[in-house]
Amino acid sequence: MKLASLKQGRDGHLVVVADDLSTYADASAIAQTMQAALDDWAGVAPKLKALAANLARGTVTGAAFDEAAAAAPLPRAYQWADGSAYVNHVKLVRQARGAELPESFWHDPLVYQGGSDGFLGPRDAIPLADESWGCDMEAEVVVVTDDVPQGVTREEALDLIRLVGLVNDVSLRNLIPAELAKGFGFYQSKPASALSPVFVTPDGLGDCWQDGKLHGVLNVDLNGQPFGRADAGVDMTFDFGTLIAHLAKTRALAAGTIVGSGTVSNRDADGGPGRPVAQGGHGYSCLAELRMVETIRYGKPETAFLRHGDSVRIGMSDADGRPIFGTIDQTVREIA
Amino acid sequence: MKLASLKQGRDGHLVVVADDLSTYADASAIAQTMQAALDDWAGVAPKLKALAANLARGTVTGAAFDEAAAAAPLPRAYQWADGSAYVNHVKLVRQARGAELPESFWHDPLVYQGGSDGFLGPRDAIPLADESWGCDMEAEVVVVTDDVPQGVTREEALDLIRLVGLVNDVSLRNLIPAELAKGFGFYQSKPASALSPVFVTPDGLGDCWQDGKLHGVLNVDLNGQPFGRADAGVDMTFDFGTLIAHLAKTRALAAGTIVGSGTVSNRDADGGPGRPVAQGGHGYSCLAELRMVETIRYGKPETAFLRHGDSVRIGMSDADGRPIFGTIDQTVREIA
Repeated sequence: MKLASLKQGRDGHLVVVADDLSTYADASAIAQTMQAALDDWAGVAPKLKALAANLARGTVTGAAFDEAAAAAPLPRAYQWADGSAYVNHVKLVRQARGAELPESFWHDPLVYQGGSDGFLGPRDAIPLADESWGCDMEAEVVVVTDDVPQGVTREEALDLIRLVGLVNDVSLRNLIPAELAKGFGFYQSKPASALSPVFVTPDGLGDCWQDGKLHGVLNVDLNGQPFGRADAGVDMTFDFGTLIAHLAKTRALAAGTIVGSGTVSNRDADGGPGRPVAQGGHGYSCLAELRMVETIRYGKPETAFLRHGDSVRIGMSDADGRPIFGTIDQTVREIA
Repeated sequence: MKLASLKQGRDGHLVVVADDLSTYADASAIAQTMQAALDDWAGVAPKLKALAANLARGTVTGAAFDEAAAAAPLPRAYQWADGSAYVNHVKLVRQARGAELPESFWHDPLVYQGGSDGFLGPRDAIPLADESWGCDMEAEVVVVTDDVPQGVTREEALDLIRLVGLVNDVSLRNLIPAELAKGFGFYQSKPASALSPVFVTPDGLGDCWQDGKLHGVLNVDLNGQPFGRADAGVDMTFDFGTLIAHLAKTRALAAGTIVGSGTVSNRDADGGPGRPVAQGGHGYSCLAELRMVETIRYGKPETAFLRHGDSVRIGMSDADGRPIFGTIDQTVREIA
């Protein structure tokens, strides 16, 4: 089952979307908003699934689904916690500045508490006041949980994943060093992120959802050119069950919690830093990783961060080449 | 005007509370929840104020207000950002471990993104699975904002503060060093915090609200004994307008954003680390600060962190000795 929130008010308007993303059916008679559906998932999900089945059969007539009319599936959420599950990515960051990766990073997940009060829609511009902040995209996988009790195991956590989607976790790279040096993590360096047009239930993903990981190539295009083609199911050191269990160690998580994978990153076949897509590599899911590879290879980064007018596309296709989650397609816009 | 959320469902049930906290009037016909009121403050606040006036005049009959029946005013919120505005506190932390305070800490606010998906009610137990985690209270002031546009000035931000209250920002001190060493800030070390029974509009605070600061003695009792008597209006290096402007530098903040002051802390009259209340000092708003003073004085901390069964009370009284925000009164409870 695929769900989306059409733009309306602060929380959008819940719709069920056809598997091929061509049409949608209004679901607001079942639950007005995505959060309302998540607040009573056991009661609401069967009704949404029945509506999805009717839309697929044609017994309910759908309207044309326009991804540009979609808000983020959760335009505002109560929790956004982002992991760094692709430890290869973290290792490259450190390698570029000559630091060792602590051995513990391979078994103790790295997460940060993100801001959840406003997610951009999939076609919304990325508002950027100052190019010198070093704006970057980060293409990631997200899951949305039901209520998660404190102390759950990985296996229990996997059963509490209700939806899967994609995120562009926008980062302001040049603000990060000074902010992290203060010791309390990110704040100004992590502005609003954008979510994919559609979120999908795990059972709607077929073989793409296995072992708490989304399997498939994450397509990242920069200004219309292929930039990243990493497989989200490869090199993910911590699956979502493990990430959620980590988050719930000392407290419960509320229904509608969004958990991120961190920037998707694949090692090269030879184990070295990845090559660009144009050179036959998997490419990168963020500019910083390419800049790190450039630093390792040439001594300094050569690729600039995002400038006003640059565009970023993020999506994943099924075996038939059709987008699973729709496409995040954003342009960086100057704001006063 | 004073507002509270009685326990009901996920978001509570909005009520207007009499200034002396004796009675309340159901406000759900105006706005069902605190968040709904904040989502349309300009439209809703005048109606709530009219109801409050009728309650005060007796033209509306109130029911008895029971602080134990109160949920957190926002049982779940879209954003919780906590500052460290009492730089004296930060300086003591560093002094205890022999580190200098960077000069920049006096003009660049230190903030962290907290988890907002579940706030404890003012009389809820503090659930603690493991005493060895080093559970501590942190008594702080909070404000709740309206929608805050990106790039607001301090003065604009001050005009967007809708409510003021108190928080017990529960911290797991022994989990903090390892978590901060990973570089991405707090997560497991910051479990759910508790909010005061009542939040108050700035105009309902009279002289206690000045220059973006709450002025008055923050009473913190540990196991029934006075522990902290610091004045929240003293030694607050960054007022709430400055904190909000800092938070909104790179993104907008949604209505209902909760912003914390950080642990309230006053210097001793002689400028040295503070003395306990029993010795005539202002005492402390968290155990860690006393432990730091003990470390500076005696070489090591002598006071233990919270144990199962310990109780913490946090409140502030008006000039007539009546609690302004009601009282946070929590006991640490063992959970499986």
